Amino acid sequence: MLSPDIAATLCAVSTGTITTILLKKGLRRTWMQGPKPIKDGYPRLVGPAFTMRFVPAREDLATPESWASPRSTRAAIEDMPEGAFAVADAMGVTGAGIFGDILCARMVKRGVVGLVTDGVVRDVAGVLATGLPVWCAGAAAPPSVAGLTFVGWQEPIGCGGVAVFPDDMIVADTDGAVVIPRALAEEVAALGPEQERLEAWIVSEVEKGERLPGLYPPNDAAKARYEASKTRG
Amino acid sequence: MLSPDIAATLCAVSTGTITTILLKKGLRRTWMQGPKPIKDGYPRLVGPAFTMRFVPAREDLATPESWASPRSTRAAIEDMPEGAFAVADAMGVTGAGIFGDILCARMVKRGVVGLVTDGVVRDVAGVLATGLPVWCAGAAAPPSVAGLTFVGWQEPIGCGGVAVFPDDMIVADTDGAVVIPRALAEEVAALGPEQERLEAWIVSEVEKGERLPGLYPPNDAAKARYEASKTRG
Amino acid sequence: MLSPDIAATLCAVSTGTITTILLKKGLRRTWMQGPKPIKDGYPRLVGPAFTMRFVPAREDLATPESWASPRSTRAAIEDMPEGAFAVADAMGVTGAGIFGDILCARMVKRGVVGLVTDGVVRDVAGVLATGLPVWCAGAAAPPSVAGLTFVGWQEPIGCGGVAVFPDDMIVADTDGAVVIPRALAEEVAALGPEQERLEAWIVSEVEKGERLPGLYPPNDAAKARYEASKTRG
Amino acid sequence: MLSPDIAATLCAVSTGTITTILLKKGLRRTWMQGPKPIKDGYPRLVGPAFTMRFVPAREDLATPESWASPRSTRAAIEDMPEGAFAVADAMGVTGAGIFGDILCARMVKRGVVGLVTDGVVRDVAGVLATGLPVWCAGAAAPPSVAGLTFVGWQEPIGCGGVAVFPDDMIVADTDGAVVIPRALAEEVAALGPEQERLEAWIVSEVEKGERLPGLYPPNDAAKARYEASKTRG
Amino acid sequence: MLSPDIAATLCAVSTGTITTILLKKGLRRTWMQGPKPIKDGYPRLVGPAFTMRFVPAREDLATPESWASPRSTRAAIEDMPEGAFAVADAMGVTGAGIFGDILCARMVKRGVVGLVTDGVVRDVAGVLATGLPVWCAGAAAPPSVAGLTFVGWQEPIGCGGVAVFPDDMIVADTDGAVVIPRALAEEVAALGPEQERLEAWIVSEVEKGERLPGLYPPNDAAKARYEASKTRG
Amino acid sequence: MLSPDIAATLCAVSTGTITTILLKKGLRRTWMQGPKPIKDGYPRLVGPAFTMRFVPAREDLATPESWASPRSTRAAIEDMPEGAFAVADAMGVTGAGIFGDILCARMVKRGVVGLVTDGVVRDVAGVLATGLPVWCAGAAAPPSVAGLTFVGWQEPIGCGGVAVFPDDMIVADTDGAVVIPRALAEEVAALGPEQERLEAWIVSEVEKGERLPGLYPPNDAAKARYEASKTRG
Repeated sequence: MLSPDIAATLCAVSTGTITTILLKKGLRRTWMQGPKPIKDGYPRLVGPAFTMRFVPAREDLATPESWASPRSTRAAIEDMPEGAFAVADAMGVTGAGIFGDILCARMVKRGVVGLVTDGVVRDVAGVLATGLPVWCAGAAAPPSVAGLTFVGWQEPIGCGGVAVFPDDMIVADTDGAVVIPRALAEEVAALGPEQERLEAWIVSEVEKGERLPGLYPPNDAAKARYEASKTRG
Repeated sequence: MLSPDIAATLCAVSTGTITTILLKKGLRRTWMQGPKPIKDGYPRLVGPAFTMRFVPAREDLATPESWASPRSTRAAIEDMPEGAFAVADAMGVTGAGIFGDILCARMVKRGVVGLVTDGVVRDVAGVLATGLPVWCAGAAAPPSVAGLTFVGWQEPIGCGGVAVFPDDMIVADTDGAVVIPRALAEEVAALGPEQERLEAWIVSEVEKGERLPGLYPPNDAAKARYEASKTRG
Repeated sequence: MLSPDIAATLCAVSTGTITTILLKKGLRRTWMQGPKPIKDGYPRLVGPAFTMRFVPAREDLATPESWASPRSTRAAIEDMPEGAFAVADAMGVTGAGIFGDILCARMVKRGVVGLVTDGVVRDVAGVLATGLPVWCAGAAAPPSVAGLTFVGWQEPIGCGGVAVFPDDMIVADTDGAVVIPRALAEEVAALGPEQERLEAWIVSEVEKGERLPGLYPPNDAAKARYEASKTRG
Repeated sequence: MLSPDIAATLCAVSTGTITTILLKKGLRRTWMQGPKPIKDGYPRLVGPAFTMRFVPAREDLATPESWASPRSTRAAIEDMPEGAFAVADAMGVTGAGIFGDILCARMVKRGVVGLVTDGVVRDVAGVLATGLPVWCAGAAAPPSVAGLTFVGWQEPIGCGGVAVFPDDMIVADTDGAVVIPRALAEEVAALGPEQERLEAWIVSEVEKGERLPGLYPPNDAAKARYEASKTRG
Repeated sequence: MLSPDIAATLCAVSTGTITTILLKKGLRRTWMQGPKPIKDGYPRLVGPAFTMRFVPAREDLATPESWASPRSTRAAIEDMPEGAFAVADAMGVTGAGIFGDILCARMVKRGVVGLVTDGVVRDVAGVLATGLPVWCAGAAAPPSVAGLTFVGWQEPIGCGGVAVFPDDMIVADTDGAVVIPRALAEEVAALGPEQERLEAWIVSEVEKGERLPGLYPPNDAAKARYEASKTRG
Repeated sequence: MLSPDIAATLCAVSTGTITTILLKKGLRRTWMQGPKPIKDGYPRLVGPAFTMRFVPAREDLATPESWASPRSTRAAIEDMPEGAFAVADAMGVTGAGIFGDILCARMVKRGVVGLVTDGVVRDVAGVLATGLPVWCAGAAAPPSVAGLTFVGWQEPIGCGGVAVFPDDMIVADTDGAVVIPRALAEEVAALGPEQERLEAWIVSEVEKGERLPGLYPPNDAAKARYEASKTRG
């Protein structure tokens, strides 16, 4: 389990910066294609992944009995620890909503940080009313069983073209959601804030009228000016 | 023709609930993939489908003469009855707007409830100014003849992967638009309000801290508590 | 170079009207599929295209050294003339942001009118803060090198299914962005305002309750009434 | 109805040449995307279009009763005249086969020239055994009702992104299937053979080692040599 | 485990007939979209599903070490029982081959019936040389780790839009591959042969010149003639 | 320019092996998605890339005059050196054939090795008759100007999701076409044959009944046996 300090530090590092750091370490597939915030204004959120997995619907499986099965989304939710970031592999299906207001309301009660999926939610008005922060691919009216069968939780999954393992670190903001492999979370937390500070300084230089070549990426002269600015600042 | 009572009842039933009821009756393809409200805040709207159909554009057909043809979108609009819900099969084409401000303004004058299409509109600012509620797949500047040829109205169509027949009932809200086959509208109107009431009770239970298993779907004990709540309420 | 008058005139002609005029001249592929305004409320903007071109990423090319190369996005931006409309061919890639806040801030400093791309931007909050008007296909956290390699500027490109040559005229508004071939810009500017006036008159007629047949497109009687209205107006 | 002579002439003109002739007349959308020959070695085939139309499946319509309905594929087939080219708008659905061996066998009995669809067939081994020439998008095991509802015949349709009207002329060969609007069939038949002759001469010139510039397209000198070759030939 | 008799019976029932039988029982999603035979002439093959599952590649997982991991495709293959039909969920990825000649050669040695995947194979010439019957979506040169991470076997999977559970029955022929839920295999085996016999009789009737209405589906008179033919036959 | 020896060596290394070698060096995007051999039985072919680039068609550019322009496909072909492998970026457009029999016949005369494109050819029967080996995404009847505008040659391009620079090495076989960055060609040629030898030995071991774990990838014991086999061989 990551220390709360690391999670707090990552809250100050944008998903953009995280993808840049991971790219420099050779990881290119860390941003999930599909999930977007369903409303404006969410703060950046961080938490360890609690994974859920769906396969396509089959009419013999999608019965009312299935909803009361021990292998159900309900059971998965009751297993979520406080502070977890729920991540659901919906195979990119956008014609059936994986969760509606009832399940989201229960996730809020359990202290879940948010929900990320490459699928969609249903009853979007009700979901917004629960206050659960959601990154998804839109909304659809039909229930999950119209297109999907739930098969398990805390397994490796794919979500939006990215592999997610239980307890990988999820960070989500306006630009979407990224996965930091568990083993790299500490290192990303160590490198992120300095990268943010450097980029903020570059923006301020651009606003003063500086030209880009030599500034971004910074050459030796620019690096020296940046270091000097830190001393002054 | 459906009675006004049925339409009024359906206005209180979400598209999510309608798809659940239809799924239990074996109908899985009732929600149209593509159409979304072009602005926030529309009330839920209901009306019998008035269908329109396009095929791909062909340069020998897309002439100024065609716009004055008796088989034109103009003629179709003049044939729309008050209270109808216009549904246009645009084959999912998103590079040519089927209607702009002039045609939408005329639809408002004729008392049309709204417009649903798996295509897009053009001059979206002008369309919004007419006040016509529109569920569509976005906006495009080019006129319909840039990609589409209008061929008729009040025929069976496909829209967003769903079959729509004239006078099927259309219900549209924040989650999109669904089709209720005409023969099932009365039954859906009969079942919908009770389903909504049950789900509202479940949400209130979740807010009190109840766990999901046994509650959603409700087991016999939960059903008894729900029935008791109705007596009290 | 187009005269400032032409650009000013085009600012009063909607992208919808421009596509109609170009369609009548036989040009059907002038509206870019993909670029949409990233926020509401931009005024219509006009400027000559400054083109940029990407090809897919290759790991041996996407190195930190590449960012300081003379063939970089930085060098391209420093070459943009005031009043240019930047247009970037990102091959429709939506998993890597071509520009973030730093590059957009510099484009504002250089007096660029706006940015159009069939790709996406990154750090969308930062980009919005720069004030640069952007038409794109959304946002992604990863840097451009995660999916794209920059190869040059002021070359012919494709963007959103449309050919764009340097100095073609770009017009962008709520319905998206269109390209007017340089050789046709003067003619479109000459025809556009009258077409806008006619359509406004037709809308006003519809609001008075006129039926569409004979009005849109106008028959001889309607044309006469329109001409009379101009005299009065 | 076209004269048999025109059909015979068109049999000697490739679909490639036909699209070039139609393009020169301003028609760019005449080749259907999707239909390919299901086996090698079909001769080029020509016939007037007999159109059929499907919309998406709906479970209340896809019943055994529907197969015996007067509005069924069976009834459509019994209405096909000898020499017709069947063209089915399957909305590009590739997960349900529109026809199998029984329906294709009956089409052969009725003297149908062939079948073109942007959908797929089922029981492809059985279909091949009937000998009916088929251009389609592949094979699928499920019956049409798994994905499609048949709604009518001899209506305007879209097929593979192209508008097809009853009695438009269909020509199909190794490169796929094209539509010649009925009103243009005579003109295409008049121009096609000469274009084929010219291109054959150009190929023979290339084989002699001629360079392309000035030859293809031919400049005045090349045209003169070509005319001379015809006199000799 | 199914009796060998049932497997033998299913070998005589086409995938088309199986989908029809399952559709009549309410199951519409049983045919996998994507897998096609990689060469002509395979006999129809039947066996219980042995499932394998991939998620997207992540550069920190796709290392040479991973190939020797206990959770690898190698280990899965060594676990396959004789007579199993391997089914791999490759999430429809077609840019990385899941297996090449070495793994396929080993599957043949282990007595595997065949391989079905919605992904692709690599080294298709080598794979063909092993003689393993393969239904897949084509070929690609890159190894699986270029796009995929293997995560487990004998779990529920999705393949080509269909849910597959371990020991569901797989049947594959020229039209592709279908899944029969384990609980329904006996019933399908019981109904299939009669359906095949009826359809063969209908084809023979069509070849005699019978019209379709009343014959397909058969009305009472046709049914009686069919029953009489069986007595004679 | 690469030495003929390197090209000859690469002819004995499969595209699969090349992608594995490049992956180990960190290059994952080297195989072009889309191009497939248009007929069976081509030998593996190798040559330096001669690149060509198209952008979308625009009706004011697609005129007969354009075909005689100095910036035409004709001029590009006359510029191709003997032994070059032509690679055309058609932006994945599959509705317009970039080359037909005449241009392919001329490429054969010029000693071009083959053609790779993510687009399609037209007049596929004529193209096959020229004998030019072609890897493409299929066939279409319409001419290139129906969908594409040719803009230049020997520029960096994207083809099938891969960056290709002039003189990168192209290798194409049954599994498709790969790009070896020019700077890496010598190294790949050095490593490839040994990798092929090792894999052939592993296949022979599997055929003897060896199990996969420890063999593929080989552990130390297996490596020793392999080395011994080479001494014997």
